[in-house]
Amino acid sequence: MFRINDNYRKLQAGYLFPEIARRVREFQQANPDAPVIRMGIGDVTEPLPEACRQALHEAVDELGDRKTFHGYGPEQGYAFLRDAITEHDYSRHGIDIRASEIFVSDGSKCDCGNLLDILGPGNRVAISDPVYPVYLDTNVMAGNTGSWKDGRFEGIVYLELNEENGFQPALPETPVDLIYLCSPNNPTGTVLDRKSLESWVQYALKHDSLILFDAAYEAYISDDSVPRSIYEIEGARKCAIEFRSFSKTAGFTGLRCGWTVVPEELCGTSQSGERIPLSGLWHRRHTTRFNGASFPIQRAAAAIYTDDGQKQIRSLVNHYMNNAKVLLTELPAAGFTVYGGEHAPYIWLKTPDSMTSWQFFDALLDRCHIVGTPGSGFGKCGEGFFRISAFNSSENAIQAAQRIRNAWSTAST
Amino acid sequence: MFRINDNYRKLQAGYLFPEIARRVREFQQANPDAPVIRMGIGDVTEPLPEACRQALHEAVDELGDRKTFHGYGPEQGYAFLRDAITEHDYSRHGIDIRASEIFVSDGSKCDCGNLLDILGPGNRVAISDPVYPVYLDTNVMAGNTGSWKDGRFEGIVYLELNEENGFQPALPETPVDLIYLCSPNNPTGTVLDRKSLESWVQYALKHDSLILFDAAYEAYISDDSVPRSIYEIEGARKCAIEFRSFSKTAGFTGLRCGWTVVPEELCGTSQSGERIPLSGLWHRRHTTRFNGASFPIQRAAAAIYTDDGQKQIRSLVNHYMNNAKVLLTELPAAGFTVYGGEHAPYIWLKTPDSMTSWQFFDALLDRCHIVGTPGSGFGKCGEGFFRISAFNSSENAIQAAQRIRNAWSTAST
Repeated sequence: MFRINDNYRKLQAGYLFPEIARRVREFQQANPDAPVIRMGIGDVTEPLPEACRQALHEAVDELGDRKTFHGYGPEQGYAFLRDAITEHDYSRHGIDIRASEIFVSDGSKCDCGNLLDILGPGNRVAISDPVYPVYLDTNVMAGNTGSWKDGRFEGIVYLELNEENGFQPALPETPVDLIYLCSPNNPTGTVLDRKSLESWVQYALKHDSLILFDAAYEAYISDDSVPRSIYEIEGARKCAIEFRSFSKTAGFTGLRCGWTVVPEELCGTSQSGERIPLSGLWHRRHTTRFNGASFPIQRAAAAIYTDDGQKQIRSLVNHYMNNAKVLLTELPAAGFTVYGGEHAPYIWLKTPDSMTSWQFFDALLDRCHIVGTPGSGFGKCGEGFFRISAFNSSENAIQAAQRIRNAWSTAST
Repeated sequence: MFRINDNYRKLQAGYLFPEIARRVREFQQANPDAPVIRMGIGDVTEPLPEACRQALHEAVDELGDRKTFHGYGPEQGYAFLRDAITEHDYSRHGIDIRASEIFVSDGSKCDCGNLLDILGPGNRVAISDPVYPVYLDTNVMAGNTGSWKDGRFEGIVYLELNEENGFQPALPETPVDLIYLCSPNNPTGTVLDRKSLESWVQYALKHDSLILFDAAYEAYISDDSVPRSIYEIEGARKCAIEFRSFSKTAGFTGLRCGWTVVPEELCGTSQSGERIPLSGLWHRRHTTRFNGASFPIQRAAAAIYTDDGQKQIRSLVNHYMNNAKVLLTELPAAGFTVYGGEHAPYIWLKTPDSMTSWQFFDALLDRCHIVGTPGSGFGKCGEGFFRISAFNSSENAIQAAQRIRNAWSTAST
């Protein structure tokens, strides 16, 4: 008789986006003519940059000729892409990361979960709250938590992000082994400042903890004082893994490509107390349970690093950040307290009049025909907050900001 | 202090292909002018079918317009692809599989390993020998084995494929929970006949075991009496998962796309003794730890099912199978005993004069300048055998067959 993984049964229903979809559907049935603007799901909306499309076309043509055909590629990624990443994202910023430490994959979401495969059971896990739900769910699946109780999983150390601490989580009082940090953070749009990251690296070095640093929104950082990579912090090569993605940088959510950095000197401890380099374990996982990212997609990713590609992705990021600026200007004018939006395409809005996140969801849909994401869907500390995504057309962003301003300015008079 | 997954340390060095590469390199340094023909790695060599390339170009253009842009897709795969798979690979053959039971991914290799995530610890695992090494390695990583001892992993039930049993493995004497079957088999190129598959399904139903059926080489089956899907066997919907791939069917080894079938009525047992549908668990894994296969690649896969696509992939498969026919004719004429090659692009050759697999590797490289794969690399039962791949140009296949015939016919006179 074969057994299932019982940890899956601890998972809570993935109800957030299905529930949003249900309420929107119901609203639209009742109001078929309402011009709904969707600012809920954090997905890009604008065309794939031309440099990437051109590279894709060329790669497809290469596959049409047996002399330039590409079958199985190196599981870790083609050198042309790993070299480009190393040069542009690390070396040029004075960061010591080598191509051999870059592992290209089909996306950060996969890597975040997969990374747990090379780690042992019994690790004590700290996760920000609110944050991207994948960190928590994959730890539940891996058996790193107890049961769900009072809106939280037993055994997890929640790192609270709130207005009081300026969204810089405090170091935990009991030692933790794995630490998930996301900066710029999804959903709050806030960033961890250099001082905070330094304290985390010091903490990890002291306790021999592993920092899992998710920098998927790095391209949206608008100010060099904010660290773009954990490896800007001294000592991080010995205690941190970094996840990066082309999804939000270049509109690759449908193409699928990202990378993970595992520095050579980063070691974990075996049962027998030996120090084992994680890089070798991850390489083994990558070659045994993965078969490389798609060849044409890797060509498209490499095209981002050409002069044209760089211009085009800057323009794409600027487009979304202009939307964020519109919202950051208009919402406070309507009386809202807002965070984020400066180094990330997300506005983290405090719900007015002590509404719950879901109450505000309904009010916003009803009064403005705008769909956003209830903050409570990202963790207990997200209750009373709301995420509005700047991934949209300029017209929609302007329209949405005006509708909110009209509805709430009117309401509060 | 964070811990690593100690199971990874039980893995044996992935020495097969690196060792092949090393010996070939050495040979070429000593013999720079030798015209080496590579028939080792099981990778396709011919151009991607035109229908797929055309679909890719069109998909890329779709991504260039915000009205037709595709971001995050359904994790389980686009309906256009799942419907095409269901119709062409199942319904048309009278097999009851629905689109909701198809999970599109970036490849079978990934799915084979990932599937273990939804299964519990303590399952007793049966794996063919010789076979594709990924089944064994992923089980070692998941902690489903003991240590490596005398060339095998403790705790694994090895299903021996040999000349005596006609490559139809015997049912195990002690009950097993997970059963890996690969037909057509890599590396032997042999298939499981209907009677054998029926006995396995009966066994699995009786013992509540799960069959993991890898049909990556299904397109090479040349005779309708050989089952192309495990679901041709009555009762399989209750005990089997099937892995399929576009890699060898349509030259997608570099594009990355495949699918897994998890029938609705297939259930596993929880610790509390409840029957839990695997489909729900796999869906949860797919949505949490994966983000869908690349959109343009899914379009390319769907193009295989058009009339043009079908003609083109038949021609591709015929090309490789013509190579196999040449080898199947020439090698016996040179005195070799050969298996496979009839329903698969692999020839499984018995080494002459009681040579070990590696001795024959060296002899073939030295005397014929041909690279193949030592059978011992696929399991203990592969010792004394050798895999020759038909993935090559016609010229190379003909040339290789002639060289072997000349070398061994001469040698034996």
